[in-house]
Amino acid sequence: MKKITITGAGLVGSLVGVYLAKKGHTVHIVERRPDMRREAVVAGRSINLALSDRGLRGLQGAGIDKDILNVAIPMQGRMMHSISGEQTFQPYGLEHQAINSVSRGGINIALMNCAEQMPNLSISFNQRCLDVELDSATLVVQDTTTNKRSFIESDCIIGADGAYSAVREKMQKTDRFNYSQSYIEHGYKELTIPAGLNGEFLLNKNALHIWPRKQFMLIGLPNLDGSFTCTLFFPFKGNPSFDSVKSDSEIKSLFEENFSDVIPLMPNYINDFKVNPVSTLMTVRCFPWSHKDKVLLIGDAAHAIVPFFGQGMNCGFEDCTVLSEILDNYSENDWENAFKEFELLRKQNSDAIAHLALENFIEMRDKVADAEFLRRKKIERLLHNQFSEIFTPLYSMVTFSHIPYSDALTLGEKQDYIINQILSIPHIESDWNSADNQTFIRSVMTPK
Amino acid sequence: MKKITITGAGLVGSLVGVYLAKKGHTVHIVERRPDMRREAVVAGRSINLALSDRGLRGLQGAGIDKDILNVAIPMQGRMMHSISGEQTFQPYGLEHQAINSVSRGGINIALMNCAEQMPNLSISFNQRCLDVELDSATLVVQDTTTNKRSFIESDCIIGADGAYSAVREKMQKTDRFNYSQSYIEHGYKELTIPAGLNGEFLLNKNALHIWPRKQFMLIGLPNLDGSFTCTLFFPFKGNPSFDSVKSDSEIKSLFEENFSDVIPLMPNYINDFKVNPVSTLMTVRCFPWSHKDKVLLIGDAAHAIVPFFGQGMNCGFEDCTVLSEILDNYSENDWENAFKEFELLRKQNSDAIAHLALENFIEMRDKVADAEFLRRKKIERLLHNQFSEIFTPLYSMVTFSHIPYSDALTLGEKQDYIINQILSIPHIESDWNSADNQTFIRSVMTPK
Repeated sequence: MKKITITGAGLVGSLVGVYLAKKGHTVHIVERRPDMRREAVVAGRSINLALSDRGLRGLQGAGIDKDILNVAIPMQGRMMHSISGEQTFQPYGLEHQAINSVSRGGINIALMNCAEQMPNLSISFNQRCLDVELDSATLVVQDTTTNKRSFIESDCIIGADGAYSAVREKMQKTDRFNYSQSYIEHGYKELTIPAGLNGEFLLNKNALHIWPRKQFMLIGLPNLDGSFTCTLFFPFKGNPSFDSVKSDSEIKSLFEENFSDVIPLMPNYINDFKVNPVSTLMTVRCFPWSHKDKVLLIGDAAHAIVPFFGQGMNCGFEDCTVLSEILDNYSENDWENAFKEFELLRKQNSDAIAHLALENFIEMRDKVADAEFLRRKKIERLLHNQFSEIFTPLYSMVTFSHIPYSDALTLGEKQDYIINQILSIPHIESDWNSADNQTFIRSVMTPK
Repeated sequence: MKKITITGAGLVGSLVGVYLAKKGHTVHIVERRPDMRREAVVAGRSINLALSDRGLRGLQGAGIDKDILNVAIPMQGRMMHSISGEQTFQPYGLEHQAINSVSRGGINIALMNCAEQMPNLSISFNQRCLDVELDSATLVVQDTTTNKRSFIESDCIIGADGAYSAVREKMQKTDRFNYSQSYIEHGYKELTIPAGLNGEFLLNKNALHIWPRKQFMLIGLPNLDGSFTCTLFFPFKGNPSFDSVKSDSEIKSLFEENFSDVIPLMPNYINDFKVNPVSTLMTVRCFPWSHKDKVLLIGDAAHAIVPFFGQGMNCGFEDCTVLSEILDNYSENDWENAFKEFELLRKQNSDAIAHLALENFIEMRDKVADAEFLRRKKIERLLHNQFSEIFTPLYSMVTFSHIPYSDALTLGEKQDYIINQILSIPHIESDWNSADNQTFIRSVMTPK
């Protein structure tokens, strides 16, 4: 059994801690922030997330998937809000399929509680990582409340310290470490639609609401208390942008022109817009993720992605499931090779979801309101119904399956080609079952 | 007039120092290494470089271009060495055009001497940069001989501290800084062909020698003392690779199979191969390069590239020329905008040469020995001769002109298309002047 230090008691750090402690290892999680169960913590991150199948399987390994689902709000589809306030619902998948609006803090606390119940796992808070000695798996940390510094020696460090990982920063200076951090031109700002006077939801609670406006968009996810957390994804520069919209009247114009149906639901929008911070959105790609059998990066530390496919947490939890399975196939003195298998497998999948997440931003903010896009979606659904064994839409493969992301990406590209062929037949979606059309559809679905 | 601190007294730091001091600014260059004029310094970098037109124009601004050319060896073309030892010469451009083999240390010393002759410029050696306060343009440095720390305050910092820039590392942590470091799968090792017994060159001195072997290559550049500095670009992994070739017999086999004509010229090759270090090859891309009017990255600190187009130094020197011209168009209190103009202009050009440099590795190690490639090169030369006003081959645009790299890249792609059309006519290169062929050639050269 190994002595393992995990940096970060966030979502992935806590979960991977549970997995490793279950295998019998002695796990010590060190977290820079205070204990969020005792002090209000500003995490600087979105307060709710969309939990889907990959994430649920991760939580299952810790035995808390059902507890989390009990306090989640299922969202069966997107509700598009047009400029004029019309709402159109697009299901995400089949009738029983939904993504789940969950509180980031809620899941994190559940995971930390679950972790601390294990006798061979402990969490230390307020520990800022000052240095990492990769070869010896030693951390130098400083207690932010006492300023006391200490060394933490172990057999292995799991770097689960997020997009701005201190462990990765140290690895960045090792020989031939490939690294990129790449920001998009948009930032985001959180706003709130409070619950109604009687605690009721003021919009359909079982949908992810989207106000797609081409160069920008507003989205809203339901919270248990009847409120919606809304996020405005908006350019930093240009017109309109966070640069150009600052005064009360500029904010008012922006909302009146673009989100008029939101104004009555969001009484403090002008003040919130002025006061709430703007956050950035980054993709991190790096390789390798491991240093011998001493250090392994996981979650956002290895592959931070933008949030537009709702897969950041889900992908991080899938890391935990996959790592756990791989470790079972290796002896304890061969973790170097286990880490290598893990990083090779997950690198291609995290690259795929990073790419899909960036693409989905354009889909969400622009294409979802487009007639041609809606026609594509309709064809996808028709194919999914008729050929359910061999055709699953890309969104469903990513969200409601455990197909590796990179396979989903490749299959999605092939499906695009098929859909394009079918779309070339005028009105095919309304005349789907005609003999001619069915012959054609079958021929493109089963080529050669 | 400003007080300017430059980090790095390397090639670009020294040259940009001269340019800025010439404008009347007070310039202080801080260099981490000892003074290479007093102590032998292992720079860990290749000891000779190919100086071409962009670099020469940079040196002209410091008035030392002629001095450098006097101690340079012109190389008019590539000399390919086949497996069987046959040599084939390919000119780089027109008869009077050549790239120049120069000593990195020689140019650096000439630039430092030139810089220190200026009353308003000073260089401090052995100053390791510990920290950079970007907003106040303050450096924290430590003298590596005395361990004494000091603050250096100035109006502006020019970060010319190379591919592993400390200034850039600090900027990497600022908001929305895009950054990537990307290594290729090959490393390099330097070897030497000494001068003959009477100091004579043992290979044609006016050529860059290449032993192209598809997955790897050896190159050789002449030095003034009659020797050639050779560089083996070789994979880290696989077979053969630095991983697989280690013992005397493995090294001997590698050379006997691939570089048999080199063995008699390189008496110590087995020992040199075993003793000399392996270096890595990296591309660095980042943006922005400036922080307000306080900090500007330049040269490899902003855009390190692989060496295969021989443009690293030339591109860095062109940075100096371009920055100098841009600064002349801005008042001293508007350097923020001057820096912005510089970074926008040079970013696209450094991205282009970074791309071309990576592509040229494949050309050098693989295609140059290929009959089809030689046919392309012949067509290029014929077009260059006949349409000299409108057709300059890509290599010549990059090497013998000041056309912005990004324009050269775009033009090169268009030319590829033209050359492909011409190559589709069988034997056109031997029947160039037939009436039919000339009609066709004119039609593809002047489309529409």
